[in-house]
Formats: sequence, C-alpha cells, structure tokens
Amino acid sequence: MASMAKVYLVGAGPGDPDLLTRKALRLLEQADVILHDRLVSDGILALASPRARLIDVGKQQGQQEEIQSEIYTWILRLGRSARTIVRLKSGDPMVFGRGGEELEFLARHGIDAEVVPGLSSALAAPALAGIPVTYRGVAASFSVIAGHRQSLTTLDWSVYQGVDTLIILMGVEYRDIIAHTLIEQGRPASQPVAFLENASTSRERVVESTLELVARRQVEVKAPAVMVIGEVVRHRTAVRRAMLQEAVA
Amino acid sequence: MASMAKVYLVGAGPGDPDLLTRKALRLLEQADVILHDRLVSDGILALASPRARLIDVGKQQGQQEEIQSEIYTWILRLGRSARTIVRLKSGDPMVFGRGGEELEFLARHGIDAEVVPGLSSALAAPALAGIPVTYRGVAASFSVIAGHRQSLTTLDWSVYQGVDTLIILMGVEYRDIIAHTLIEQGRPASQPVAFLENASTSRERVVESTLELVARRQVEVKAPAVMVIGEVVRHRTAVRRAMLQEAVA
Repeated sequence: MASMAKVYLVGAGPGDPDLLTRKALRLLEQADVILHDRLVSDGILALASPRARLIDVGKQQGQQEEIQSEIYTWILRLGRSARTIVRLKSGDPMVFGRGGEELEFLARHGIDAEVVPGLSSALAAPALAGIPVTYRGVAASFSVIAGHRQSLTTLDWSVYQGVDTLIILMGVEYRDIIAHTLIEQGRPASQPVAFLENASTSRERVVESTLELVARRQVEVKAPAVMVIGEVVRHRTAVRRAMLQEAVA
Repeated sequence: MASMAKVYLVGAGPGDPDLLTRKALRLLEQADVILHDRLVSDGILALASPRARLIDVGKQQGQQEEIQSEIYTWILRLGRSARTIVRLKSGDPMVFGRGGEELEFLARHGIDAEVVPGLSSALAAPALAGIPVTYRGVAASFSVIAGHRQSLTTLDWSVYQGVDTLIILMGVEYRDIIAHTLIEQGRPASQPVAFLENASTSRERVVESTLELVARRQVEVKAPAVMVIGEVVRHRTAVRRAMLQEAVA
C-alpha cells in the first residue's frame, strides 16, 4: 500500500491562521483533499491550495463512522497515485475529538498516516488571555476535562477536586451544573473562573467570574469557550491591573 | 511607555522548526533581540533574522530574577524606538517555565507584552508518538504535572490518583520515585507507561514500559522526555501492530 494516498491528521489550532504550524500550512498548500471540522475557521481554509477539494465533515456525536467512511472513500478515489489527504481538526487532533480512533481506523486499513499536532484551545486560550495555567506556589499542575453531557453523567468529578487548575472544554452549556458540582465537592464558591470565548479570533472575549455566580446561572457566556477554574485566574487580573495603572500614570 | 520596545513571550514548541507557528516565525524574522531558553533548538534559532542578537538566558532554578533583569536591560538599551524583543521559551510560555511571572514583571514595569502560545511538549509529544491523551471509554480527561524534585516534595500526588491519563514533564530523573508513589497510592503496577524522548527531533525515541518496571529502576530513559501513564498508551501499540501486520501482509 506504500504507493497509496497518505493521510495527515492535522491540528488547525484555536482559529487564528497565524497560530497554524508551518507544517500544517505546507500540508494545506499541498493537499488534494481536506476533510475538516465545522469549527475550523474560514481564514485557515483560505490558505488551502486552490485546487484542493474542501469537505466539511462536520462533527456531531455519532457521526464518527461516517467520517471514517468518507476518509476511506477518498483514499480509494485518489487511488494508487501518491496523494495528500489532510484530515483537519480544530485544536489538536489527539485531544478529544476522537483523533485516536481515526488513527486506528487508518492503521487497520493499512493506510499511511501521520499526526501533525496543533495548538489545543485548552492551553492556547488561557495563554492568549494572560492566564498562566501553572504558577509557582499557586498551581503546580492542571487537568483538562470535557464538560459535555456525556462527561457530566459518566465522569467522577470528585477525582479532580484537589487539582489546582481545571481547564474545561465544551462546558459552556452545562457550566452551572459543573460549577455546582465542584462547589458541592469542596471547591471554594469564591474561586475565580474565566470563560475564554472564541480565543484567537476577532470575536475573542474574556468573562471573569466565580464558581458561585456560575452555579447560580448568573454568568452569560457563548460557546465555544474554554472554562478555566482556579487561583491562576487572579494572575490575569494582576497583569491587567498593572497595565492599567501604567496607562493612567 | 507606548513608544518603547514590545516584548513577545513566544512559545517555540517541542523542537522541530516545522512545528513553530507562523506568528512565531514572523516574530523571529523581525526581532532585534531574542532571549531564549537553553532547550530551544538550533534549527529554530537559525530562522531568526541575521541582524537579531541571540542571547542564551539559560533556565536554571533560581535564575528567574537574572532573566527578568536581562529583559529589562535590553528594553532600556533599545530605548524609545519601537523595537521587537522576543522572549523565546521552549514549548508553551505559560505551561511551567514561569511565563506568568515574566508577564507580571513586564506589566509591573509598564512594558507592552504579548503572549504567543506554542505547542507544549505535554501534548505534542504524545500526539507525535501516536498516543491519544483522551480516548472514548478509556480516558475522558488528563492531567499535566511537573516531575522535578520540588514537585516530589511539595505536591500531593494522591490528588491525581483517579485521573486516567497522567502526563509528566521533567520527570525522567525521579521516574522510579514517581512510579513507586503512584503504585503505592493504588494505580495498577501493570499500567503502561511511555517515555517520549526528544519528541519532534531527529533523536526522537519512544520507550514503552509499565509502572512496575519503572519503579524498579529497570527502564533506561534520557532526559528530556515526556512521561505518559495510562491505558491510552496501549492505543499506540494497537496502531503500530496494525501497521506492522499490513507491512508483513
């Protein structure tokens, strides 16, 4: 199968085309076919070769088999001429989003595949907002969790009770339940929370609050947003306060 | 201070110059001064503008004040002409490595600063090795921890006991103590471990083992390496086995 098409599982990062890796850019420029998530930004797709066929394979729960089938169909269609298929995923292909399953599918079918990591919103969004996810004496580590419905019912959230910094992806819809659960399990209700909406895009917005207010449904946030919980959020405030004082002085 | 030099806290990623972001590349090409960690690769530094002054500010514990003082000296030296100073950190500037402290220092001194996130080895190394850090039904989340001496004495490792995937940075030296601690606190001794040495470079090497063997000091690893602990490591093996069978068939 060495002469068949190769599939690159490429991370598109959080949205800003400037935050693509050089390798991801080169592959977009070389690709014959690009199968992309709905979240991949237009600015990134605009970098693709004009002759590339762009296919929105969406990403709804339960569609995994269809995406795999579409990848497979394209590989067969491109045939034995060595060609480039890019499977473009927002963020990093191996952080949530079932990149591992797609990689196994390709391997099982004898299809040559390579993973090209991209910036995960889990880390890029806090960095862009000026929130250090670790900070000496404040947070020595962090955990990344998906906050969708499935996690709410199947995940034991008490496992993360003692972790200083929690980063929750896909948690906007159930943010009140998440905050309520964390308080119930012992996190201080006054612990700061930041929601990082549309990080790295022109619609970027940061909402700072507390677990208590989030639990009471008093915080308006629009998905997609990364939710950061922990004392590190105060360091963003410290940076901003210093900058503000300087501007006034 | 608006007319003074601007400092960019830039993530250089895991080592491969191809895994730099487009924005990081552009800033390296524009920079007057680049203050970089010891871990930033020669291949990345070679992308800098020929007129840029490269300064190795190292990264030893306790040197933070000297690095800050060096950044400050350069800002004063470049004076009021608006110039570009790049503070280049391996990986992501806000994941360990005290990026938050540097950002606060700059803000306190009224220096304009911007964070440019880079690929953290914590996520890029597993992705490049074919290890999905999350996997439906296997791992719904992950934690990232520093495994250096300080963490071993001050961190309550039992907090991470129930987390499916653990990603440990800077843990090679004390890997036996880490593995021993995790087993003692209830993780299965047979749980798979992968060490990802020099990820994304030509010296990349993957060592697979188990917590038990690591605890017994029977696993040779060279720093720097990312340590991944959890059942997700088996999925790398599954992908490789499938590829091998295909090659034989």
